Amino acid sequence: MKAKVEVFLKAGVLDVEGKAIEGALHGLGFADVSGVRVGKTIEFEVAAADRVAAEAEVKAMCERLLANTVIEGYRVEIAA
Amino acid sequence: MKAKVEVFLKAGVLDVEGKAIEGALHGLGFADVSGVRVGKTIEFEVAAADRVAAEAEVKAMCERLLANTVIEGYRVEIAA
Repeated sequence: MKAKVEVFLKAGVLDVEGKAIEGALHGLGFADVSGVRVGKTIEFEVAAADRVAAEAEVKAMCERLLANTVIEGYRVEIAA
Repeated sequence: MKAKVEVFLKAGVLDVEGKAIEGALHGLGFADVSGVRVGKTIEFEVAAADRVAAEAEVKAMCERLLANTVIEGYRVEIAA
């Protein structure tokens, strides 16, 4: 099964990379850009019995490794 | 308008971060994970006249700043 995890900073946590990109876009003339937030996407194959088992396993991976849950949230998508 | 850009390494380009995550997941006991690929998500607000104009502008941003098109591809999504 194909799993896709999106990891992003929680609202309220300063996104310095986003701020840097926003500044660079403004510098290039894209003045109408605001609220830039940067996240990470992790895609992989996981061998699980079914969708529910896959989702539970991927959530465990997020909690243990993929996301720093103090400052980051995550979304999990499972595709067959 | 809300824009979402996904930037990912092209197929065939070695993803060292993905390999490191795969190794770490195996080390934690998630042995059935394979083909880990890591990408970046950039979300922001863009003030454009319509969806088509927004998409064209965001694609220009990707070509000029957000993606290194030698080794990276990108996907653009515009939501109203």
